[in-house]
Amino acid sequence: MIRTLGILLAAAAVGSAFEPAEWADFRSSRADGRFVSSRGAVQGLLEDIHPACAFDPAMPAADFPAWQARLREAMRGLMKFPTERPQALPRRVATARRAGYRVEKWEAYPLPHTAVPFLVLIPDTASGPLPAVLCLPGSGQPKEYLAGETSADLSLPPAEAPGENAMALHYVREGWVAVVVDNAGTGETGDAEQAAGRRGYDDDNLARFLLEMGWSWLGYTAYADQCILDWMREQPYINRERIILSGFSLGTEPLMVLGVLNPDIFAFVYNDFLCRTLERARVMTRPARNGSRPAPNSIRHLIPGFWLQFDFPDIVAALAPRPVICTEGGADRDFRMVAQAFQLAGAPQNFSYHHQPRFAHAKRWQGDNLPTGLDRDAFFRMVNVDPRHHFFKKDLVLPWLRALLVPAQQEAQP
Amino acid sequence: MIRTLGILLAAAAVGSAFEPAEWADFRSSRADGRFVSSRGAVQGLLEDIHPACAFDPAMPAADFPAWQARLREAMRGLMKFPTERPQALPRRVATARRAGYRVEKWEAYPLPHTAVPFLVLIPDTASGPLPAVLCLPGSGQPKEYLAGETSADLSLPPAEAPGENAMALHYVREGWVAVVVDNAGTGETGDAEQAAGRRGYDDDNLARFLLEMGWSWLGYTAYADQCILDWMREQPYINRERIILSGFSLGTEPLMVLGVLNPDIFAFVYNDFLCRTLERARVMTRPARNGSRPAPNSIRHLIPGFWLQFDFPDIVAALAPRPVICTEGGADRDFRMVAQAFQLAGAPQNFSYHHQPRFAHAKRWQGDNLPTGLDRDAFFRMVNVDPRHHFFKKDLVLPWLRALLVPAQQEAQP
Repeated sequence: MIRTLGILLAAAAVGSAFEPAEWADFRSSRADGRFVSSRGAVQGLLEDIHPACAFDPAMPAADFPAWQARLREAMRGLMKFPTERPQALPRRVATARRAGYRVEKWEAYPLPHTAVPFLVLIPDTASGPLPAVLCLPGSGQPKEYLAGETSADLSLPPAEAPGENAMALHYVREGWVAVVVDNAGTGETGDAEQAAGRRGYDDDNLARFLLEMGWSWLGYTAYADQCILDWMREQPYINRERIILSGFSLGTEPLMVLGVLNPDIFAFVYNDFLCRTLERARVMTRPARNGSRPAPNSIRHLIPGFWLQFDFPDIVAALAPRPVICTEGGADRDFRMVAQAFQLAGAPQNFSYHHQPRFAHAKRWQGDNLPTGLDRDAFFRMVNVDPRHHFFKKDLVLPWLRALLVPAQQEAQP
Repeated sequence: MIRTLGILLAAAAVGSAFEPAEWADFRSSRADGRFVSSRGAVQGLLEDIHPACAFDPAMPAADFPAWQARLREAMRGLMKFPTERPQALPRRVATARRAGYRVEKWEAYPLPHTAVPFLVLIPDTASGPLPAVLCLPGSGQPKEYLAGETSADLSLPPAEAPGENAMALHYVREGWVAVVVDNAGTGETGDAEQAAGRRGYDDDNLARFLLEMGWSWLGYTAYADQCILDWMREQPYINRERIILSGFSLGTEPLMVLGVLNPDIFAFVYNDFLCRTLERARVMTRPARNGSRPAPNSIRHLIPGFWLQFDFPDIVAALAPRPVICTEGGADRDFRMVAQAFQLAGAPQNFSYHHQPRFAHAKRWQGDNLPTGLDRDAFFRMVNVDPRHHFFKKDLVLPWLRALLVPAQQEAQP
């Protein structure tokens, strides 16, 4: 139980210079091709994975709904939502007037020990059931930031210069209801690290406990979001047929979960690069100078068994025919695959994607499988990721949503 | 996907001094007792856990075997060993003569991509089937260290002054066969970090990939150990009715797994403090000065869902009536519980435990449940852990094993 120091063997070749490039790939030096290194052996297991619910672009259109249903069941199994929904209904705990809208603070009670706060921004123009956007923040971004607020209890004035990811503010100014949640452990839902004045959140500690209990950070977060989504459907000022999910960065993960589990969601704003998270782990194998290979990311992203079922583009493909916009690029290969799903589902016009400006007119990688041996920078370059240009792309999202929603609003207000 | 910096709310009380003691326990400040903090809510879930296979000291003796069987099934489910055993048999790859014994290096092939080396120390006195000890190392300790060897291929002379945890050497000198394995990712089974001259091992990266695939570090390690144990049973110079598992520190985890899954194991050397790993996580909640609460430990110890089934003392209780010695103390409460299991199983004499010398005659905590709000030092003190006195306790183990085995050896050599 107590960690002891590693003990080097006398024979270890410590003196010779370490060359990361020589270790970038896993190549067995043995005639039988096996690995003595456990990490090498595990890489072999990883390369053997064929996700059970991968999208097959060659499937007949008639098989598409059955594949979607299978993927939905797999997602339901992984997310492990409690089978009993909460008894207590959400309650409003604060209201504040803002220019052109009001902001309400509510609490949901998804689990016995929990009060989960969320914000609702309602335009003053509300005269009938409106489209509503559930806003799912990026890592470390509290709901208040997305709403342009500066205080958890709404007692302080709104931000004079809202940040570039204040998506809820943009949505309510369009005349739509915006509901904003916190990712678990963020903002008000953080822990002692916030009282100690830290900027980051102790995601790892929170995620670890959930994993030990057989759950996951994403299962927990998405479950709270699901309870809030259920509440949204019951509000008379919300058009339940025009509920949109808008995820930024980390928020695209609960977006994918809720999107798959709730076939009545109207449309999706996917504001991140479209990542093959399994492939990323497979190919980012080049160690740093100290011999460490890149870890996938924090254990907040760990859902045991997820990789056996699907990669992210498979999930986005399964959202078809419902409208999806991807705003921060990715590999052309993956966009072609998702577009094929929309074709099969009979709605090719419902999938939009945009490369980052830096890559929009550049020569982009066009292969089918990334090579192994990449470090993070090489991986990002090959799949067209521009990390310094990672923000809510309102200039792409708002016109796209307007075009989808204006007819709907007119229908809803005869 | 890309991690962004946390954004502080203007209202956060950053200026005031942070007092860890004020945050040591989870206490809701709300009338309804709920937590807005996700970590607080998860603490509530954690405190609600009643492990399904916990040992009940009040159970009738007649129910003991059925409870053991239930616990075994739960362990089998958690460990997820592949259902097909390897086709290729282990092979010997090197042999070296030592004073009074020979050491052989073998390889097992538990999975398609893997060659798992292990050492076998065979006393020169071997004239019939001998007792054999499977030695399970502590964290960061390669098999060569436990065997007093200095080179992976056995080409160099043995250590002039073997380390204090060279348990295999002690066992072979007693006239028993000693088999030594590497924990996954340690020693020869390490990765690029070793070539780069680091002393530690990248356990987290290895464990993470296994977890993503729905497996675990312990499941993988224990499965390799199981294949080597299966091989041990078939060697003519090993008395298969006298196979002992000897685990040091981290090695007590595969010991518990193999012990539960293999009812034919003869006896167990548990060389660590007897820890309630679930309770430890529940009660070590006092944050450091930077607001971080102690994380349980590395994700190498994470087996999703484990805590829902049992805590470590439940598992040790389920080894009864087979002889067990615990050499590095723990809470008296837990030793009483395990002793009660041996009583129920009709073999109270088969459980031995020893407190660390520092606590043997001290006043020890005698409660039933540890309080929350502890940091690591406080936890260690309450459960009688002396981390500076953590080594293979040969002076306790060898006489205990001799007394158990000498009659067996005599029986085996008529």
